[in-house]
Amino acid sequence: MTLEPLPETDLTRHRRLREQGSLDRADLDAILDAGFVCHLGVVVEGRPLVVPTVYGRDERRLYLHGSVASRSLAGGMPVCVTVTHVDGLVLARSVFEHGVNYRSAMIHGEARKVTDPGEKAEGLRRLTEHATPGQWSYARQPDRKELAATTLLALSLEEASVKIRTGPPGDGDGPDAELGLWAGTLPLTSVWGTPVPDPPLPPDMPVPEHIARRGGTRHG
Amino acid sequence: MTLEPLPETDLTRHRRLREQGSLDRADLDAILDAGFVCHLGVVVEGRPLVVPTVYGRDERRLYLHGSVASRSLAGGMPVCVTVTHVDGLVLARSVFEHGVNYRSAMIHGEARKVTDPGEKAEGLRRLTEHATPGQWSYARQPDRKELAATTLLALSLEEASVKIRTGPPGDGDGPDAELGLWAGTLPLTSVWGTPVPDPPLPPDMPVPEHIARRGGTRHG
Repeated sequence: MTLEPLPETDLTRHRRLREQGSLDRADLDAILDAGFVCHLGVVVEGRPLVVPTVYGRDERRLYLHGSVASRSLAGGMPVCVTVTHVDGLVLARSVFEHGVNYRSAMIHGEARKVTDPGEKAEGLRRLTEHATPGQWSYARQPDRKELAATTLLALSLEEASVKIRTGPPGDGDGPDAELGLWAGTLPLTSVWGTPVPDPPLPPDMPVPEHIARRGGTRHG
Repeated sequence: MTLEPLPETDLTRHRRLREQGSLDRADLDAILDAGFVCHLGVVVEGRPLVVPTVYGRDERRLYLHGSVASRSLAGGMPVCVTVTHVDGLVLARSVFEHGVNYRSAMIHGEARKVTDPGEKAEGLRRLTEHATPGQWSYARQPDRKELAATTLLALSLEEASVKIRTGPPGDGDGPDAELGLWAGTLPLTSVWGTPVPDPPLPPDMPVPEHIARRGGTRHG
């Protein structure tokens, strides 16, 4: 695991004061590990395209399922990948001070199409295990034809920035506090539900432990 | 409310078969109304930038809080706004058939900075009410100085596309069904928590009804 702070570049420098920027790799890793869907931004004929897709990672790079973007992505095209967890609404006394509690990571770089079958299998393993730990060894792994039919992108985690906002609204000690209005936060939580078996399964088939144990746990 | 189907353009045409594309405006409206955070994509010096921000809407346009993008956004710059709700994991017998149940809307267009104070106040009202119904008339509304300090973007909802994936994995009737593996979906739900009062408030201050009633309800 790389332990140096994230480099501050023109793209990752934080311009706003209200949100807290972080250059701590542990914050980046925590945000990436708390989710499995990112928004991948690419430029197609001068226009932006933002598509949701799934991802996994190792210590140095992000792996992205790239089918959605494959028509647009040549090798080495600049991308921006953003992962956001929304933790709640910040309800202040004034509309102006309203906001959102969130954790967001933004990764900039050149996405590379993974072509080596070994790296592709390893990237897909990371991606699968990221979304559902235990699933890569449980499910049938991709054969050669399926591997070839899968578009996987790799993106270095080197140039990244993190923004986190937590806590109460900011106008509790200003003149608006005299208005006598309620203020605070309304938390938002993501929770895994009970696994839903595929209808063709035998009705008495038990849910595998690695899937069953996530039911009811917090996501994000 | 516009009732024509969404126009099919080069940008909104659906290229993949596994997800269901929709050109139904009701689907678009439902996805937009189920969330309040979008991912706004812009192009800055040829590179994509994807930032999370809050939005609201009227019948014809999206209003976006634009501060984060203000340094990059000249008037009439092409943007792509994507709103995604992740409804769960699709766990198939084969890794290849794994996927995500989701609802996603993508809006393409030229974002315009709202400069007219009346339109800006109305856009902010839409945005505030979209995130927290009832809050615009409860909180202190922006004064002239705050309005001027707020960057609000408007984006036509004319060119939009919707993708929705629901239901079980797709390999229940293929050869992999013989593997005897469990398959199904693991649902993911977003839930509003109990409101957290700002610490400076008097301890006996009741939570306003329009905020209190969201606690425990589903979001998304």
